[in-house]
Amino acid sequence: MTIAAAIEELKTLLGESCTTSKSDREIHGRSEVYYAPMPPDAVVYPTSAEEVSEIVKICARHDCPIVPWGTGTSLEGHALALKGGVTVDFAKMNHVVEVNAEDMDVRVQPGITRMALNEELRATGLFFPVDPGANASIGGMASTRASGTTTVRYGTMADNIRGLEVVLADGRIIRTGSRARKTSAGYDLTHLFVGAEGTLGLITELTLKLQGQPEAVSAGICAFPDMESAVNCVMETIQMGIPMARIEFVDAATTLAFNAYAGRDMPAQPHLLVEFNGSDQAVTEQSERFGEIVAEHGGSEFEWATKTEDRNALWQLRHDGYYAILASRKGATAMSTDICVPISRLAEAVTETQKDIADSPLDGPILGHVGDGNFHAILMMDPDSPEELKEAKRLADRMAERALEMGGTVTGEHGVGMGKMKYMAREHGEAWSVMADIKRSLDPQNIMNPGKLVQVN
Amino acid sequence: MTIAAAIEELKTLLGESCTTSKSDREIHGRSEVYYAPMPPDAVVYPTSAEEVSEIVKICARHDCPIVPWGTGTSLEGHALALKGGVTVDFAKMNHVVEVNAEDMDVRVQPGITRMALNEELRATGLFFPVDPGANASIGGMASTRASGTTTVRYGTMADNIRGLEVVLADGRIIRTGSRARKTSAGYDLTHLFVGAEGTLGLITELTLKLQGQPEAVSAGICAFPDMESAVNCVMETIQMGIPMARIEFVDAATTLAFNAYAGRDMPAQPHLLVEFNGSDQAVTEQSERFGEIVAEHGGSEFEWATKTEDRNALWQLRHDGYYAILASRKGATAMSTDICVPISRLAEAVTETQKDIADSPLDGPILGHVGDGNFHAILMMDPDSPEELKEAKRLADRMAERALEMGGTVTGEHGVGMGKMKYMAREHGEAWSVMADIKRSLDPQNIMNPGKLVQVN
Repeated sequence: MTIAAAIEELKTLLGESCTTSKSDREIHGRSEVYYAPMPPDAVVYPTSAEEVSEIVKICARHDCPIVPWGTGTSLEGHALALKGGVTVDFAKMNHVVEVNAEDMDVRVQPGITRMALNEELRATGLFFPVDPGANASIGGMASTRASGTTTVRYGTMADNIRGLEVVLADGRIIRTGSRARKTSAGYDLTHLFVGAEGTLGLITELTLKLQGQPEAVSAGICAFPDMESAVNCVMETIQMGIPMARIEFVDAATTLAFNAYAGRDMPAQPHLLVEFNGSDQAVTEQSERFGEIVAEHGGSEFEWATKTEDRNALWQLRHDGYYAILASRKGATAMSTDICVPISRLAEAVTETQKDIADSPLDGPILGHVGDGNFHAILMMDPDSPEELKEAKRLADRMAERALEMGGTVTGEHGVGMGKMKYMAREHGEAWSVMADIKRSLDPQNIMNPGKLVQVN
Repeated sequence: MTIAAAIEELKTLLGESCTTSKSDREIHGRSEVYYAPMPPDAVVYPTSAEEVSEIVKICARHDCPIVPWGTGTSLEGHALALKGGVTVDFAKMNHVVEVNAEDMDVRVQPGITRMALNEELRATGLFFPVDPGANASIGGMASTRASGTTTVRYGTMADNIRGLEVVLADGRIIRTGSRARKTSAGYDLTHLFVGAEGTLGLITELTLKLQGQPEAVSAGICAFPDMESAVNCVMETIQMGIPMARIEFVDAATTLAFNAYAGRDMPAQPHLLVEFNGSDQAVTEQSERFGEIVAEHGGSEFEWATKTEDRNALWQLRHDGYYAILASRKGATAMSTDICVPISRLAEAVTETQKDIADSPLDGPILGHVGDGNFHAILMMDPDSPEELKEAKRLADRMAERALEMGGTVTGEHGVGMGKMKYMAREHGEAWSVMADIKRSLDPQNIMNPGKLVQVN
């Protein structure tokens, strides 16, 4: 067995930091969604880029698949060992390397979680803004090109990384980008590795852009008669240049799940959750102007949360959305769809999806990032029912089809992994084969997270 | 001759849109900087992506180099026909294809200039914000990853493109990205082609993000006792989250060139030029807070330009910087350096560069984008003096060296072209060879703008 030979060498290199224990393999074979477990043959815990390079060289010699692991919170099976091999868990590479407060950037190892990073940054007055909900690792967030509730203001992971250190499939360690705020020096390798899901190399360090903690923050929630009014309200706000820090929507079904999960008492209507950041004066002005636009579009009176604890409760509610929805059907697992369309088509995309779900035996509450045109239907199913899985896939296929017809994408922020491979040819046409060309060029043996994102054979 | 055979076929395909006239070849063999002319063997004027694809297929069959041409305003010899071949001039592909005002995006052909685009957008209340000074073509701006005075607020070309249509080296036409505001669907090919300087393919269409025209704009200029105070003032403003739309600096030597060129009467000191965009209230607040920070750092009273014509005159002055400086030495040509460093190192980088220039027989006024850490010394020289060219190269080498020591880049916005090739190995290390891997994978014959950006042999 070539994999077995690799593991023998890895044990010699790493000692106890290479494990084949059943429990470790099982933990690294699970995801948060409906996939059956796919454990790796071994799990390694490197402590440096040099060690990662040695690991990759050993695996390359033995044609052994390498799967990167952050916190295991991805939603498309990215970190499952589809073809066995070795999972590289970055739990021990979780440090802040250097904070540059004047330049508003920070170098971190990939295993640090976003909450741990922001905790460490607290005293500097700076923060890292990308917030996908889950307390994911920064390396994982980079690899899936994650985004989330703050994207409308601060952008996605692609917009918030100045440079990377990456270990390639042949063990070479490279650096991309620089600490300068911009560069025109050659191909943009940083953006190539961000969102590559570990299929082109392993990220071992990241230089991230930081933001100043705003002087004032105000958040609120209000109900709308229908999706279309809510979306039109947001489009008008964006066009007027009023900078929202977050603008989220939940449909009536999600509102009911929130009520049950968090003891709320919201009307069974679509809601918008919004946040403004800035100076006291700016936040006041923005909230007032937004309030006027809301009223014009038939929105209810705003319930503002200006106290920190109320605001945290509001966003905790949003972030618990997936779990609140799952809790609404006992024992259910879920498929989380992730389409993203031009905002002008968002209301139509949501309404059509709701119709599909209403006509289906499955439930699928909808929530999403209205400022980005990105939403998720959480399709719940019995984990032991092949029929329900089939029906969920049918609904997801229809959503994907619709997103592409509307000029959008089948995944706004979750990534391709295994789950969205089937849509890639349709979304990209010939460009998908260009991705395969690049993959073959940088990983000719196909050992880096094989079977995810790109098809090379 | 293989190139001659290609041209014969191109004439059959394109008729008069393929020309080998002396004047056409000469025009396409010149740049705005010190390089000797390098004319192509022919110039073609395609009208569609399909025609570009046919042109590329013909050139590929005959191993004929292909050089893309927008307006010829690039500063590193990107569009010169170093190895002869065919220049593809996009002058006839200069249309707006579709404006989507609700989604704030626009599809354009690559030959449209940024001013023509903004003229066409005027009635929509939207504008395209990237402003490199020159009235460059959008395709050229994308290909060099251009930025300029508005980058501190709106980002570079890399931040303002949703998707591309590209003709590859084998004639395949692909589409990258989508009209959605974000996507995690596979490798980020858009960012790979942006800044690739035509070495991986020819951009035949771009989908650009647009911005709403601000309700209020205020711009102004003030003097500082030294570079360090000016830079510290800007760093503090950024850290406080006060959003500047532009923040530029010029040194004392540039100020004197402005006085002579535009009949101004500014003190021989470093100056900051700033602009704020937003609601009336926001612009007033931002200007006031910035004024306070300026005073704390020893800046002079601000001269505000709130009337449109005064503001335009101010930015025209800045945009004419290169020409104003060139006019200060009769008959001179110039080398425009372009380093970009972390802002915390900017004052030091400028001061050290000024010392080098003071010790040199050449003049080199300095101006730049302080919010990005990017500046240019315009090194003037006699076009017929090999000694002066050598001295300019020595000064530029020292600047490049310093930028890399400071964690920066040798080119913030001009690109690599021919002029910065020599620094690439030093800036990128092994990562430069990864760029070559990608180049070989997508252009195995090395026909796409050969001899620029990347070394494949």
